[in-house]
Amino acid sequence: MTIDEAPSVGMVKTQTVRLIDPPDKLSLESGKSLTPIDVAYETYGTLNRDKSNAILLCHALSGDAHAAGYHTKNDTKLGWWDRLVGPKKAFDTDHYFVICTNFLGGCKGTTGPNSINPQTNQPYGLDFPVITVSDMVNLQKRFIDHLGIPRLKAVTGGSLGGMQAMEWAIQYPEMIENAIVIAAAAHVTAQGIAFHEIGRHAIVSDPQWQQGNYNPKVPPKEGLSIARMVGHITYLSDYSFNTRFGRRLQDKDKFDYNFSKEFQVESYLHYKGSSFVKRFDANTYLYISKTMDYFDLEGKYGSLKKAFEKVKAKFLILSFTSDWLFPTRQSKDLVNALLANDKHVSFIEVETDYGHDAFLLEGEKLKALIERFLIT
Amino acid sequence: MTIDEAPSVGMVKTQTVRLIDPPDKLSLESGKSLTPIDVAYETYGTLNRDKSNAILLCHALSGDAHAAGYHTKNDTKLGWWDRLVGPKKAFDTDHYFVICTNFLGGCKGTTGPNSINPQTNQPYGLDFPVITVSDMVNLQKRFIDHLGIPRLKAVTGGSLGGMQAMEWAIQYPEMIENAIVIAAAAHVTAQGIAFHEIGRHAIVSDPQWQQGNYNPKVPPKEGLSIARMVGHITYLSDYSFNTRFGRRLQDKDKFDYNFSKEFQVESYLHYKGSSFVKRFDANTYLYISKTMDYFDLEGKYGSLKKAFEKVKAKFLILSFTSDWLFPTRQSKDLVNALLANDKHVSFIEVETDYGHDAFLLEGEKLKALIERFLIT
Repeated sequence: MTIDEAPSVGMVKTQTVRLIDPPDKLSLESGKSLTPIDVAYETYGTLNRDKSNAILLCHALSGDAHAAGYHTKNDTKLGWWDRLVGPKKAFDTDHYFVICTNFLGGCKGTTGPNSINPQTNQPYGLDFPVITVSDMVNLQKRFIDHLGIPRLKAVTGGSLGGMQAMEWAIQYPEMIENAIVIAAAAHVTAQGIAFHEIGRHAIVSDPQWQQGNYNPKVPPKEGLSIARMVGHITYLSDYSFNTRFGRRLQDKDKFDYNFSKEFQVESYLHYKGSSFVKRFDANTYLYISKTMDYFDLEGKYGSLKKAFEKVKAKFLILSFTSDWLFPTRQSKDLVNALLANDKHVSFIEVETDYGHDAFLLEGEKLKALIERFLIT
Repeated sequence: MTIDEAPSVGMVKTQTVRLIDPPDKLSLESGKSLTPIDVAYETYGTLNRDKSNAILLCHALSGDAHAAGYHTKNDTKLGWWDRLVGPKKAFDTDHYFVICTNFLGGCKGTTGPNSINPQTNQPYGLDFPVITVSDMVNLQKRFIDHLGIPRLKAVTGGSLGGMQAMEWAIQYPEMIENAIVIAAAAHVTAQGIAFHEIGRHAIVSDPQWQQGNYNPKVPPKEGLSIARMVGHITYLSDYSFNTRFGRRLQDKDKFDYNFSKEFQVESYLHYKGSSFVKRFDANTYLYISKTMDYFDLEGKYGSLKKAFEKVKAKFLILSFTSDWLFPTRQSKDLVNALLANDKHVSFIEVETDYGHDAFLLEGEKLKALIERFLIT
C-alpha cells in the first residue's frame, strides 16, 4: 500500500473555542496583550485514558487547523498534512490523538489581524499586535491545558511549524516527550528576511491595501499574489523548476514575442499567486512573515547551546538536500547545540528534489523516519 | 598597486550616433523591424593603425554605455566595469581600443521603449518591438562596421553581456578573435524566468504603469523597485547576505515589534530598489528581462553543439562558485559543447562569495585571468 492509498481520517470539521475572554488576556512578547482570543482546531484519533498519546501539529506560514481529511464529500483539497496524518500514516491516528490549531495571528478561525477588534467593531488591521513564535506557543499551551492534557507525546511541524516545535520544547520542557523539527532553523537567513520583505512591500504598495484597512471584499490582490509568487520560488528548488517546467512553452509551439505568458513556469506562478489570494488574508501575511523574521533562538537565549539547555524532549531533526530556504547547515547547527547539551537528538538529511516544500510532499520518506522515532 | 589604485580612463562622455535612418531599418528576430535607431557609446584607448586592437564590451540588464571612468569631476559613480577597464587593468586601455554601446532596447541613449516613436511623437511604450540578444548583436555589428573595424580582438560581457558575446561569436565567426563569457549560460533556468516574471508582474500591476503609457515623470516606481529588489537577491549569494547583514538591526538595539524596517537587510534592499528607480526605465526592464528569457542557444540552433559549430573565436568561460543565477554547471555545458566541436576554450570557476555580481566586483581575480588569456 502506498501512502496515497492509505486510509484517511475522513470527514472532519474545524472547531472554534473562545479560549481567552476579558479580563483574562494573553501577554505577548512585544509587551502588549490581547483579548479576547478564539482558537480554531481540529483533532484526529482518540485521546487515551491516561492522556499520554497526544501529538500537536504546528502549521507553517500559510497553513491552518485543517491538517488531515476533508471538509465536504466533494472536497478536492485534503488537509495540509494528510500525507502524514491518518490511520497507518506517520502520525497514526489509530494510536495517537492528533491536534492541530490555527496559530495566533492566523486567518482561519484563530484570532488574527482580520478578526473583529471589539473596540472598533472593524477588523484589527494594523492595530493587531505583532506576534512572535513564543506568543503562538503560549496560546497553544493554553489550548492544551484547556483539553486537560498534561504532556504531549510529541510536538512537530515543518518550517515555521518547526520553529514552534522548538519553542515548545524550550519553554515547556516538562510537557514535551518528543520534538520533531522539519525543515526549520534557529532563525531565517538574511536572504530569507529579504524575500519576506519583498512580499510585504508588494502588499503595502498595492493601493488596495489602504494602510491595512482594506475592505475584505476588495483585498490587495496583486500585492499578496506577488508575495506568494516570491515565496513559492523559495519553497521549490532550482532542480524541481527545471524538471517540472524547464523552458516549455505555455499553449504554443513557438514564441509570440510579446508580453503574454510564453513559458509554462510563468503561467504556473500566476496560478499559484491568484489561487492563494482566494484563501489567504494579506495583513495576516504581513504579520506571519514578520513572526518568522523575529524568531531567533540565539538572539533570545544568548546562544543556541543556552537555548536548548533545559529541554527534556528527544529531538528528531530533519532537513532536505534541496531546501535552500532552511538549508541543512542550519539544521546541523540545531543538532550541534543539542549535542553540546548532551540531549537526545536524531538527525537525517532527506534526499529530495522538492526543496523546502518536501516537508509537505515527502510522505513516504517522512513516515519511515517519524514512525520509527516515535516508537523507539 | 591594487586595482583600486590603478589609473582610470578619466573623464569620458557618452556619444550618440543615428546609426539607422529610414528607409534603412533593422530587421528583428520577431519578424518586425525598427527604424530609426540611435546608438549611445563610449570608447577608451586608441584604435591602432591596422584596427586590430578593438575590444567590445557588452553590458548586462541594467548597464549602459558608460563602462569606465567618470562623467563629471564630482561623479561618485564610476563606469560599471571601471575595475576592469583602464590603463593596466584587465582590458588595458594603453593597448586596447575598448568600445561599449548601450544595447538595443536600453534606456541610456540607444533607441528603446522610452524613446520617442516618430509615428506618434510619444514614447514607444509597449509599441516597441520585443528585442532578442541576436537583435542587440546585429545592431552592435552595424556599429562596429560604422567604426570601420573589420575584426574584434575580443568581445566580452557578464550575464546578459556574456550571452551577447556568445551570439557575436556564433553569428559573426570571422569577426571575433576572442570571446570572454562571464557568469552567463546558454539560457536562463526556469527559476530565473520565474524571478523575471515576478519583476515584470510587479511593474505591470503598479497602477502608475498605465498600460505602459506612463508619464516619464510619474513612473511605476513601486513596481520597478520591487523588480529590482527581487533581482538584487539573485545577484548576491546567501553567504554574502549573511556576512554583510546577518540579523543586524537597522539603527536600533532591539526590535520595535512593528512594521518599520527592523533589519539592515530590509533597509538595504529598499535603498537598492529606490535608487534604481531614479536611473532606470520600467518598460525597458520589461523588455530586457524578456530578452534574457528568450535567449536559448539550444532552442535556436537545435543543440548546444550545433550552436558553436562554426565559431572561430578562442573562448574564455568564467563562472563563480557562489553564482546561483547562472550556476557553474551551466558554464560547463558551454565548455563541453565547445570541446565537442574541437574549439579552443579555457574555463575557470572563480572562488568568490559575491554571487552573480562577482562579474562586476572581482576586479583583481578577473584581471589575472583575462590579461593572460588575451596575451596567449
